[in-house]
Amino acid sequence: MTRRRYIEEKLRAVDAKIGDTIRIIKDGKGMEGVLMPHHEFSGDDIVTIKLENGYNIGVAVDRNTDIVLIKKQKMGIRKTKKIPFDPNKPTISIIGTGGTIACYVDYRTGAVHPATSAEELAFSVPEIFEICNVRAHVAFQMFSEDIDVSHWKKLARYVAKELNNGVHGVIIPHGTDTMGYTSAALSFMLRNLSGPVVLVGAQRSSDRPSSDAAQNLTAAATVASKSDIGEVVVVMHGDISDTFSTIHRGTKVRKFHTSRRDAFKTVNDIPLGKIEDGKIMFNVEYRKKTDGKVLVDDKMEEDVGIVYSYPGLRPEDIPEKKGVVLVGTGLGHVPNRVIPKIKQLIDNGSIIVMTSQCIFGRINMHVYSNGRDLIKAGVISGEDMLHETAFVKLMWALAHGKNREEIERLMKTNIAGEITERTRADTFI
Amino acid sequence: MTRRRYIEEKLRAVDAKIGDTIRIIKDGKGMEGVLMPHHEFSGDDIVTIKLENGYNIGVAVDRNTDIVLIKKQKMGIRKTKKIPFDPNKPTISIIGTGGTIACYVDYRTGAVHPATSAEELAFSVPEIFEICNVRAHVAFQMFSEDIDVSHWKKLARYVAKELNNGVHGVIIPHGTDTMGYTSAALSFMLRNLSGPVVLVGAQRSSDRPSSDAAQNLTAAATVASKSDIGEVVVVMHGDISDTFSTIHRGTKVRKFHTSRRDAFKTVNDIPLGKIEDGKIMFNVEYRKKTDGKVLVDDKMEEDVGIVYSYPGLRPEDIPEKKGVVLVGTGLGHVPNRVIPKIKQLIDNGSIIVMTSQCIFGRINMHVYSNGRDLIKAGVISGEDMLHETAFVKLMWALAHGKNREEIERLMKTNIAGEITERTRADTFI
Repeated sequence: MTRRRYIEEKLRAVDAKIGDTIRIIKDGKGMEGVLMPHHEFSGDDIVTIKLENGYNIGVAVDRNTDIVLIKKQKMGIRKTKKIPFDPNKPTISIIGTGGTIACYVDYRTGAVHPATSAEELAFSVPEIFEICNVRAHVAFQMFSEDIDVSHWKKLARYVAKELNNGVHGVIIPHGTDTMGYTSAALSFMLRNLSGPVVLVGAQRSSDRPSSDAAQNLTAAATVASKSDIGEVVVVMHGDISDTFSTIHRGTKVRKFHTSRRDAFKTVNDIPLGKIEDGKIMFNVEYRKKTDGKVLVDDKMEEDVGIVYSYPGLRPEDIPEKKGVVLVGTGLGHVPNRVIPKIKQLIDNGSIIVMTSQCIFGRINMHVYSNGRDLIKAGVISGEDMLHETAFVKLMWALAHGKNREEIERLMKTNIAGEITERTRADTFI
Repeated sequence: MTRRRYIEEKLRAVDAKIGDTIRIIKDGKGMEGVLMPHHEFSGDDIVTIKLENGYNIGVAVDRNTDIVLIKKQKMGIRKTKKIPFDPNKPTISIIGTGGTIACYVDYRTGAVHPATSAEELAFSVPEIFEICNVRAHVAFQMFSEDIDVSHWKKLARYVAKELNNGVHGVIIPHGTDTMGYTSAALSFMLRNLSGPVVLVGAQRSSDRPSSDAAQNLTAAATVASKSDIGEVVVVMHGDISDTFSTIHRGTKVRKFHTSRRDAFKTVNDIPLGKIEDGKIMFNVEYRKKTDGKVLVDDKMEEDVGIVYSYPGLRPEDIPEKKGVVLVGTGLGHVPNRVIPKIKQLIDNGSIIVMTSQCIFGRINMHVYSNGRDLIKAGVISGEDMLHETAFVKLMWALAHGKNREEIERLMKTNIAGEITERTRADTFI
């Protein structure tokens, strides 16, 4: 049994759950406090408790340590708190999906829970209630690396239902790892949006002093309740000094840093706008919300993959799938020796789209002979799309085009802001 | 027969080569000029000639057009020009590999050739002779997407030979697509450098007015001939207004734009320095050149691949190779459902290293359960390495470590500046 497992079983044996008050008895001495969640940066043998003076301490627990349950946490945010309603404020929906941002701090105990109920989700950032009324829902509770097409579909339907029920906008708290993929997917799946759809995340959980959860959620609430955007957008920190948040188009944004709060950047375009001091300022034109009914168009072909090119890439490294997004080098190249395999896959019906490892800039396979050979083989230019967006779009296009020509036409047509006709000079790092 | 092929055969029939003077006769009218290379942006049916007044014109050629050879180009740069030698200047070696930068402009005809001889290579930017003496060599002539391990080995040996023969430094003009991979490979292969090894490229060929070839090469010559660097570096445009060039550490640099001249950026560190007005300014510490003999340590395991994670990634998408660099999401995650396959591959002897799609920041698999499961399965953290560098290093480490423990130790040890112990706060986009 691992040490962590041993501790978990020891806590379970006395029915001690996070938020409960326990006493840890070690070497004849006892320490009493509220059981806190195990923190990633603590050792496996550590149990963290919040003392009455408010400090958290970690205690190493071994076979000679006793744990006693002193009292159970008083449960029931749901019972003691009610989501407020102000008839003069717009109403939005929050649809929870999990991720760091959906971790809920119990303000009484300081403990961090995943928000598994709608009310907990809403109360995870009570500041929102200053801005708007909130309907809260939990669609699912996932770390974002496990979110896939089935979740995108569920979300798209949820969003449409909420907007068609009359809310002003929708917020989707989401793990940041794959938020760009989900925002792109919803951009293709949702048509005729009658309000903003705002994905938002946090790079640091709410139990850390540097957490970006509160600012991101209030900025998202501002966009969802006060803007006339009819697009799927991502709202995240614009800088690390908490000055402003940035509104990114859902098809043009990716995560560029593993830990910084300003990790999200718009690529090959400038961001739609920003939120500063509660005010929204726009940089560019955007699609306005409509008065009609939101439509869901969520047919997707799942047999699509991403293949990253590298020196020595071999023909067998390119799999037989209905769709493949190649992440080539430079303007859109791969080693010459894999081109016959690519041609063979295309001749057998695969759709292959070229994007670039450079991330910034545009594919141009007309410049060098390698690119021209790829065009001849039938590889489709991903233009200036992010490879993540091209991957999602290819799933969508394969399910919507009846034949190769139609799929190619869809891939080359700007559907949801994913292709900019001319790349602006001021959109690089 | 394609139109282009038709034109090529028509030119071949009259023995008209680039640089020769031809007459194109169409609709009874004739135009005379020097045959120019076919330009990527011209139509397939266009033949471009340089008129006597210096203007280039494109003429559409069809079956009713005649082409007549007027006179052959006078050959022999090699015969008419000699590389100058100034005993008061340091001597460097240029080792040509191909790519946009190695395209040679014949200043007499304006025609662009790949520099297939050492002298042509040297004369591709005669400005260099102001800075240093040049020994020129052509190692091979490749577009960089086709450069692989065998070429890296050839280059490493070439560099060592030249430095051990006493040149002050070495310049390697290289296609920009995979320059970062090659600079990383040479960084691991070369030990005890007695002078700077400078990779340099061009995003725009020398026949275009916006070409960056001249500035990049002169900056590279300055670094190669005047600095005391004992590392492999990349020198490229620092901005788009030709103000300065940047010196990047070979293991920390990647191409971030398909076409901009300032496409290369240092990741997770600040660049070593810059060259402005012919002067070198350093930002950080670097390894100084040694007085000893350069050693080549170029054993590489070629059975290594890069796998880019995406929503819906399946176990069968992760191939059985001796080494795999995963490009995961965020702090280093992949969909949970592929973890058993990863564990199985590792149990069967594969070495699997985690890097991030974020590119910036550091892997930390201790934070979330997905990462902890990956650590348990035996996945090695790529720390803050670029995935391109981790890929090259894994080839090198697999060939140098006797067992799993040694390979893991090598991957986690900073060998050539590829891992920074603490990421600086000022190194993001």
